[in-house]
Amino acid sequence: MFERIAVLGVGLIGGSFARAAKKQGLCRHVAGCGRNTRNLLRAMELGIIDSFTTDPASSCEGADLVLISSPVGSFRELAGAIAPGLRPGAIVTDAGSVKGDLVRMLEEMMPEGVHFVGAHPIAGSDRSGLEASSDDLFRGAWCIITPTGRSDSASAQKVSALWEALGCRVQHMDPFVHDRVFAAVSHLPHVAAYALVNTVADLERGSLAYAGQGFRDTTRVAASSPEIWRDICIHNRDNLLEMINALRKNLEGMAGMLEASDAAAIEEAFSRARAVRREIG
Amino acid sequence: MFERIAVLGVGLIGGSFARAAKKQGLCRHVAGCGRNTRNLLRAMELGIIDSFTTDPASSCEGADLVLISSPVGSFRELAGAIAPGLRPGAIVTDAGSVKGDLVRMLEEMMPEGVHFVGAHPIAGSDRSGLEASSDDLFRGAWCIITPTGRSDSASAQKVSALWEALGCRVQHMDPFVHDRVFAAVSHLPHVAAYALVNTVADLERGSLAYAGQGFRDTTRVAASSPEIWRDICIHNRDNLLEMINALRKNLEGMAGMLEASDAAAIEEAFSRARAVRREIG
Repeated sequence: MFERIAVLGVGLIGGSFARAAKKQGLCRHVAGCGRNTRNLLRAMELGIIDSFTTDPASSCEGADLVLISSPVGSFRELAGAIAPGLRPGAIVTDAGSVKGDLVRMLEEMMPEGVHFVGAHPIAGSDRSGLEASSDDLFRGAWCIITPTGRSDSASAQKVSALWEALGCRVQHMDPFVHDRVFAAVSHLPHVAAYALVNTVADLERGSLAYAGQGFRDTTRVAASSPEIWRDICIHNRDNLLEMINALRKNLEGMAGMLEASDAAAIEEAFSRARAVRREIG
Repeated sequence: MFERIAVLGVGLIGGSFARAAKKQGLCRHVAGCGRNTRNLLRAMELGIIDSFTTDPASSCEGADLVLISSPVGSFRELAGAIAPGLRPGAIVTDAGSVKGDLVRMLEEMMPEGVHFVGAHPIAGSDRSGLEASSDDLFRGAWCIITPTGRSDSASAQKVSALWEALGCRVQHMDPFVHDRVFAAVSHLPHVAAYALVNTVADLERGSLAYAGQGFRDTTRVAASSPEIWRDICIHNRDNLLEMINALRKNLEGMAGMLEASDAAAIEEAFSRARAVRREIG
């Protein structure tokens, strides 16, 4: 499918992508790039990448596909570094959890003849880093592809086919719609989990010794990478703010019912949530 | 260990207790009691109980151990119904998720010669009901025993030994301390999960089609029984209100950092939460 894939950021997502692409025989050569030489050496050792450099521009030389799989806060700088050296016909895609303005920016930064198509595989984890990567991370997962009016349709098709070949269920979505959807089902739950852990740690730290499966599950994603999630929050700020504020309002409502000892209202709110939650499975 | 155990409420906890007690040979006879005859017939069919009635008083006649494993909102009425007919020397215990004032009330309601000792096995689930019960639900789980200055120490020892025999790690705790601890690590996370589901359902219902593992885990407990959790919230109201308000304040702080695009503060808050969460494992 490709001759040479450059993977910028060889962590959980980039590493799993490289492993899966190799396993499916989708390319001849994977060039890895990152900030941490030890991590890249480890990726070589594991056979996940075929060459490496810490210089983004040189890692993308001659690549017909570039995957940007670093925290979204690094996208602008990386795109600026690689754009001048990209070969005509190359496709650039990403695995970022935020699209919207980032997609617009990346499209604009690409040189003539190079096409950007945004992608977001829904396969994160509270684990992060290369060692957690696996060639079946994407199997059965959603991958949202976010082509726009400016996208090259052949490139969008090729990016879709690529993620499908890695086992994803591909869905096309407007980048701005994407950001609302994932503010709701992913970014807000992460913020809620981080806030919940800090609240309990501040108020009743000793109680954590008695945390059961409920607490563990509810807060599992609070073990996620602070760097990755900081960037996601900042780049999806407006949607996320609206949703954090809606959650605060909902909790205010719950507190009001509880203050009034309104058992019927509490049960109704819980029943409504249970019905919704059970639909998801 | 016991001749006849009466189990008031043959659901997930009561059913699992009966199964485990039988498996460990801790009693000759388990008398089941509940509101739903079909459920009790099913428990008979599965060999979980040996006899049943929908009348609490008669189910406890001759019992040397009574387990109250119904929603905590039913405790007062049940205790009132069974107290007159309890035989001297009988031990009454419970599996309620709230202790505090409830323990005091139950102690006071017991007739001369009958001893109440509170217990809370930390083994709930988003599943509920008899069909979800199992004889190893309590294996490796904490069981908090809440004796007070008024408790009969031989009875407290016996209740401890009972839960240990069912596989629990037993910990004694003051009933009011218990309620703070579990407001933090259990009741607050449940309220947060219910609120999170309702917030997303209100704002971006369609987004739920794209819910990944993060959303599923964070909200798993929102599938829990609304009746059981309504009662827990009402009976641990003051602790829970304090913690809901602390969570609101924390989310307000997060919203402030985000409004200011304060990446460093966000990363610091996330890092703190991650360190705490990783300690729990």
